[in-house]
Amino acid sequence: MSHENYQSIIETLHECMTTCNHCYDACLKEEHVKMMAQCIRLDRECADICAYLEQALGRGTPFVSELAQVCAEICEACGNECKKHSHDHCQKCAEECKKLVS
Amino acid sequence: MSHENYQSIIETLHECMTTCNHCYDACLKEEHVKMMAQCIRLDRECADICAYLEQALGRGTPFVSELAQVCAEICEACGNECKKHSHDHCQKCAEECKKLVS
Amino acid sequence: MSHENYQSIIETLHECMTTCNHCYDACLKEEHVKMMAQCIRLDRECADICAYLEQALGRGTPFVSELAQVCAEICEACGNECKKHSHDHCQKCAEECKKLVS
Amino acid sequence: MSHENYQSIIETLHECMTTCNHCYDACLKEEHVKMMAQCIRLDRECADICAYLEQALGRGTPFVSELAQVCAEICEACGNECKKHSHDHCQKCAEECKKLVS
Repeated sequence: MSHENYQSIIETLHECMTTCNHCYDACLKEEHVKMMAQCIRLDRECADICAYLEQALGRGTPFVSELAQVCAEICEACGNECKKHSHDHCQKCAEECKKLVS
Repeated sequence: MSHENYQSIIETLHECMTTCNHCYDACLKEEHVKMMAQCIRLDRECADICAYLEQALGRGTPFVSELAQVCAEICEACGNECKKHSHDHCQKCAEECKKLVS
Repeated sequence: MSHENYQSIIETLHECMTTCNHCYDACLKEEHVKMMAQCIRLDRECADICAYLEQALGRGTPFVSELAQVCAEICEACGNECKKHSHDHCQKCAEECKKLVS
Repeated sequence: MSHENYQSIIETLHECMTTCNHCYDACLKEEHVKMMAQCIRLDRECADICAYLEQALGRGTPFVSELAQVCAEICEACGNECKKHSHDHCQKCAEECKKLVS
């Protein structure tokens, strides 16, 4: 199985990573950063695991299911946190995270 | 400046990372792995720095030019090594790397 | 809970990452690289997940148990592969990996 | 040149990464998070590049000087930001960062 077989999941991971990093960046610029502290933290966790899994899939890792399960749990937590905040970047992030929850 | 502004470079980095990881994976499966040792090594270096820069751009890093310069140097070295090998995955990798050499 | 609480596991992860990266580097320089292909692949997987978990612990990730479980599985696979090879770097790597298998 | 040759720098990088991640975690828990936004951002940048360079040295990267230069610049920026804040975690972080500035 090569990286082509995972093309769809790789694209979703990539979009989620991008959105989480953007949300992280935007949260740090918000007026009320304190309210966003957990969002900042989970955005980073989520971006990092999505980036990790994306790279791992691309290099033919034998640990797809183990890593995908962790990634889904982190995406779920991040999405749940983002959903609480009305900022566009948070709402968009919640949507992207949801796509990776199994 | 937000992640939208870097959309084009982010996509190129992403494509390069994907191609390097695929080349790494394919090189490890080649009949003559020994000949591919330097290619395996540089594919990893290049995939890692492209992934790093892509994430950094996405989170609004203040160190764009410094990181982009290192990335260009690693892409150049990886592309030069890949170019030496006739495998399709190496030739494709050489092409992608070249796009990131300034 | 802060990073001090995980000091012992962090040190073990760090030692394992270092040993895996050294084994990866040494395997790529071996005379018979082809025999080492799976070792090279798993050394990278293992170094990457150990580095990831180490950083995650250090930044107070809420996903300790999920990540630790994946890490243990990858360490086990890497240790099992390394154990097959008589090179000193492989045997040392097998030992370090074993310390992280739950 | 193997990973033993870089043992001292690897340990300094490791200590800096740990301290930056701890400072990042602690800043997110501070009462006045807004004041710490730039510190949070730079702690992450600095932890990530230190972790990256540490791994790269461990696997015999051919790009030591290029990566070390970027790392020194990011450490300098992070240390300068941390120095402005009186929290213990910031002051300790400033000290560690300074050790990596060439």
